[in-house]
Amino acid sequence: MASSSSDSSFPVTASNINPKVVKCEYAVRGEIVTLAQKLQESLNANPGSHPFDEILYCNIGNPQSLGQKPITFFREVLALSDHPDILDRAETQGLFSADSIKRAQTILSQIPGRATGAYSHSQGVKGLRDAIAAGIEARDGFPADPNDIFLTDGASPAVHTMMQLLIRSENDGILCPIPQYPLYSASIALHGGTLVPYYLDEASGWGLEVSEVKKQLEDAKSKGISVRALVVINPGNPTGQVLSEENQREIVKFCKQEGLVLLADEVYQENVYVPEKKFHSFKKVARSLGYGESDITLVSFQSVSKGYHGECGKRGGYMEVTGFSAEVREQVYKLASVNLCSNISGQILSSLVMSPPKVGDESYELYKAERDAILSSLTRRAKTLEDALNKLEGVSCNKAEGAMYLFPRIRLPEKAIKAAEAVNKAPDAFYCARLLNATGVVVVPGSGFGQVPGTWHFRCTILPQEDKIPAIVSRLTAFHEKFIDEFRD
Amino acid sequence: MASSSSDSSFPVTASNINPKVVKCEYAVRGEIVTLAQKLQESLNANPGSHPFDEILYCNIGNPQSLGQKPITFFREVLALSDHPDILDRAETQGLFSADSIKRAQTILSQIPGRATGAYSHSQGVKGLRDAIAAGIEARDGFPADPNDIFLTDGASPAVHTMMQLLIRSENDGILCPIPQYPLYSASIALHGGTLVPYYLDEASGWGLEVSEVKKQLEDAKSKGISVRALVVINPGNPTGQVLSEENQREIVKFCKQEGLVLLADEVYQENVYVPEKKFHSFKKVARSLGYGESDITLVSFQSVSKGYHGECGKRGGYMEVTGFSAEVREQVYKLASVNLCSNISGQILSSLVMSPPKVGDESYELYKAERDAILSSLTRRAKTLEDALNKLEGVSCNKAEGAMYLFPRIRLPEKAIKAAEAVNKAPDAFYCARLLNATGVVVVPGSGFGQVPGTWHFRCTILPQEDKIPAIVSRLTAFHEKFIDEFRD
Repeated sequence: MASSSSDSSFPVTASNINPKVVKCEYAVRGEIVTLAQKLQESLNANPGSHPFDEILYCNIGNPQSLGQKPITFFREVLALSDHPDILDRAETQGLFSADSIKRAQTILSQIPGRATGAYSHSQGVKGLRDAIAAGIEARDGFPADPNDIFLTDGASPAVHTMMQLLIRSENDGILCPIPQYPLYSASIALHGGTLVPYYLDEASGWGLEVSEVKKQLEDAKSKGISVRALVVINPGNPTGQVLSEENQREIVKFCKQEGLVLLADEVYQENVYVPEKKFHSFKKVARSLGYGESDITLVSFQSVSKGYHGECGKRGGYMEVTGFSAEVREQVYKLASVNLCSNISGQILSSLVMSPPKVGDESYELYKAERDAILSSLTRRAKTLEDALNKLEGVSCNKAEGAMYLFPRIRLPEKAIKAAEAVNKAPDAFYCARLLNATGVVVVPGSGFGQVPGTWHFRCTILPQEDKIPAIVSRLTAFHEKFIDEFRD
Repeated sequence: MASSSSDSSFPVTASNINPKVVKCEYAVRGEIVTLAQKLQESLNANPGSHPFDEILYCNIGNPQSLGQKPITFFREVLALSDHPDILDRAETQGLFSADSIKRAQTILSQIPGRATGAYSHSQGVKGLRDAIAAGIEARDGFPADPNDIFLTDGASPAVHTMMQLLIRSENDGILCPIPQYPLYSASIALHGGTLVPYYLDEASGWGLEVSEVKKQLEDAKSKGISVRALVVINPGNPTGQVLSEENQREIVKFCKQEGLVLLADEVYQENVYVPEKKFHSFKKVARSLGYGESDITLVSFQSVSKGYHGECGKRGGYMEVTGFSAEVREQVYKLASVNLCSNISGQILSSLVMSPPKVGDESYELYKAERDAILSSLTRRAKTLEDALNKLEGVSCNKAEGAMYLFPRIRLPEKAIKAAEAVNKAPDAFYCARLLNATGVVVVPGSGFGQVPGTWHFRCTILPQEDKIPAIVSRLTAFHEKFIDEFRD
């Protein structure tokens, strides 16, 4: 950091900025990542100075940073949309697939003036929203309205928009799963609301019990909290469970009954690894129950960052906003318009993700091979890491049915807990820092996601490429044995 | 809108959402644009149904939507970065310039794993920030630190970040010019602060008088407002003035003296149309005065949406953050990290804008020709529109020295003001709606930007392509004469 004078010599200080900003925490890029970056710099400067030769980032769902290749068709269309001048050149036929050229032409024809460098409609280019709505219809078997789609720079800004809309003060509560993805706690803190936790049941594979949600709702109400919305992350982050359709029906009925907005984080909808589970969108479940616009207020978040494509750097995504009155919809539109529009490449990619090549298209076979290779490799990696974790003394790990994470529980010896307290660290943060310093493996302490008090976890992605997995398993195993031996009670 | 049931049948209503959202206004995409979209649809459905054959959008600084072509070199590099697989193919040599291939290679080598699909560092890719810092140094003649650069999805999110950081409650004030770009009033409203207006002096070409700023600051203080920052837009939006270096020095000294953060909106730094004026960054002015990090807290906003390139749809930009303590800088970093990172294409484009081709590069001549053609055409368009506006009865228009707008004052007859009141509209909104219905020309009422009470203006961009300008001038002139005749007192 360039500024190093003491805080008090500046007019703006940590004690006179917005206290909501100070309160907000975001563990996925927090202290452990700062330590990893320092180690990385130290490794670059002095190779061989640590007991490992590379940092293995298992802290964040960022597949392409770990070597996952992008889907060729998607990148072809993006490149052609960025530089349409080459569309009619003979050389282009040799470099790009015929259907990527055709798709880029179609997309350009949907953008007023073929101008990929222009601000679009604040909700996103209408033709791209049409393609997304068609993709949702094909997925769900129920109609989707392109006017319900708001394209965004990834799912995060969409979540912020909803929190900004719903939270008036600290008396407004948002029901969030614990463990949760810390975007939710961060966004609720930034908007000055109250996170109302409901606990997922680790013993039943991170089950979501409506009775628990109801208990927490009643408890919050009794404290004068007006609970506005229920966040559900399915497939789960950091917990990896995939909800059953029956469970989803209960949740939908509960939200209708209680007048709660259902905020459905469905960004891992393509990431399901077990044959016995299938992703169902909450909108499909609601419509299957016969619930229409006036029965339930439902927002579904989707992102190009996840799925098999993992295009995090493109910052594309959308929210499908249903069951709001016209007056409130206008307010959502106004919030979108203040930021003009989301980035057009991300918009295009969102449409591609929801309408990939089809059987018979020139790119289909390659697309299918790339997609299936990634998904089946993720399935294998999830299983290998899960098995390895479950072999460790005092560690138990639920199955990653979906998403990109394992969230093992670690039973730490009392001595380790004391040692952590002595250095003013949460015991799981202490464990994760020791792991990183010993092995170069970066995982995020469970305390960043929330957990039942007195239990300790960490989140580990399943994203390192398969050739790295054996090294991670052996380093983690060796570290864990040594750690437990060191602190054994 | 799909939802049409009455507001009260939904759990979320316009009266129980965040009142800050309801309060926020954003005229650039407000009522007048909704009317324009309706007319557009009507024209598409029934060509010939209106006294014009196209809608001419002069409401927003969106050059490529009006036919401006992108800079070839920038788009070549973006396409190659999106699809690096083609970099080594023989056909690519025929399709792309040699220096665009080289630049893409350099950029890819700066991105860990060459992964343009990965989340980057939360401030943006380090190598791209290096290029931007070098560009700032070359522009200013003073050092710039890549660690001071935060890459963002356009300038708007950067402005929101600063408002979020500085505003604790309605007792915190932000000094803003009036007229202002309504992103500022919208963002201050959303974050619950108080806009402290200072008036630009129309009679002296929208001059910024420090005495006026001081008067408003004292006035706000006397009301118990804690004023945190001063917003200066240079070149001005919607006012088009370019500040003199002497004026900027006064402003910098004033901010130091009063302990105000200087929020410098410098997104139009490439858009200067008069030989007697030159853009100077506030950082250069501050450093020229000998002011360092501990003397003044200064944030400069830059965007790829403006300049000669006008790449609005790419949502790229950055803020250069200087003079904050390390503690506060950490908080800014945390806010950036909650949204992970800005889109990588926008990051790359930001670096290209700050380091375009140089003399001797293969692309230089084409780049220079494209850039100069756009800037000289904008200069001609500004002059033609300014002259035409000044010829209208009761209209006076300051010079567009820079930026992309004219902001003429219209003296409306008393009868027109009464007619506007009768339909519950601001008189300038009434004028603009009539203009749109009669001519298809979309301009934004001055009331959306703020103006001295009792004066009326509109903002008109200089962005329609040159072949459209004569039609705009003749339609506007004919409309205005008829309007004044109709309402003449």
